[in-house]
Amino acid sequence: MHEHTKEDVALDRVRRYLEPGPVVLVSSQHEGERNLMTMGWHTIMSFTPSLLGCLISAGNRSFELVRQSRECVINVPTTALTDEVVGVGNTSGREIDKFAYFGLTPEPSEQIATPGVRECYANFECRLRDDHLVEGYNFFIFEVVAGRAEPTPAYPETLHYTGDGVFMVAGEVIDYQRHFLPQML
Amino acid sequence: MHEHTKEDVALDRVRRYLEPGPVVLVSSQHEGERNLMTMGWHTIMSFTPSLLGCLISAGNRSFELVRQSRECVINVPTTALTDEVVGVGNTSGREIDKFAYFGLTPEPSEQIATPGVRECYANFECRLRDDHLVEGYNFFIFEVVAGRAEPTPAYPETLHYTGDGVFMVAGEVIDYQRHFLPQML
Repeated sequence: MHEHTKEDVALDRVRRYLEPGPVVLVSSQHEGERNLMTMGWHTIMSFTPSLLGCLISAGNRSFELVRQSRECVINVPTTALTDEVVGVGNTSGREIDKFAYFGLTPEPSEQIATPGVRECYANFECRLRDDHLVEGYNFFIFEVVAGRAEPTPAYPETLHYTGDGVFMVAGEVIDYQRHFLPQML
Repeated sequence: MHEHTKEDVALDRVRRYLEPGPVVLVSSQHEGERNLMTMGWHTIMSFTPSLLGCLISAGNRSFELVRQSRECVINVPTTALTDEVVGVGNTSGREIDKFAYFGLTPEPSEQIATPGVRECYANFECRLRDDHLVEGYNFFIFEVVAGRAEPTPAYPETLHYTGDGVFMVAGEVIDYQRHFLPQML
């Protein structure tokens, strides 16, 4: 049985998990309603404070939940959850409870009310920090206020969406640390 | 000999190359000075218009060149350019001409003055569209105004940076198209 034992991630180390650009599951909750969406449009914006920018389309149910609760959890799945990632991306939270429908377990967060997804190997609790670009671009800037991840494997296989129903898988690792200046690490 | 024959990419298809989150080389030019930087903090923001948001740190020489010329080229390298990617990321354009130093070829652009990098498998010419978040976050919103890419291989191995000098390599492909709703493709 996979125990999903996670350890805290230092807030300035979030890039380690999100900078490679994996598809993530965004969990949201407001006034008793919860939802999940699949998201590929996100970027790290700062180490300290730990900032993450992302696009949540106004047509999604998650948009309203996140805008009103001003929080979400960014959950990072591995290839073991490919079916669930695709299922979440092809259904609407207006019709089903995606946690229940896809057998994903809401995991209580530490700093916010919105639960994470237990089956994902990393979870980042986010508070909305800047909504200036929500109106024009559906672009939310979040501050990551807590993070945890499974310590092993160090680099699990993640999904990277290209459109057309096709994902690239990142798994192999190249270590070029010896070629970096110390201040660039 | 690798001919680097490229074909035009439709502007609403840029996500195909950038949504998976590869490290890119940003080329910039202003008043006779040109530069290159390695960048991992970027996200697609819209299909039409074709928008890309990215972080260019104010400490980089590229920041000034891009801010003044209001354009850049986003070049996507494969693992064949790992040495150059790391080299560009660990040197300063204030001291060397990175194109010449790393043996990278400036390739004329179609819509803008800034050249791309011929050795990269895809190039996206960008004009600055929105600089509201440059002051507060070093965050630039570009419109992609032209794109081209080598048609084969369809999914070349790309580099995805995790920090610590370590890259993940995306290459293997999973095709889940049959599981997608037509309107979600």
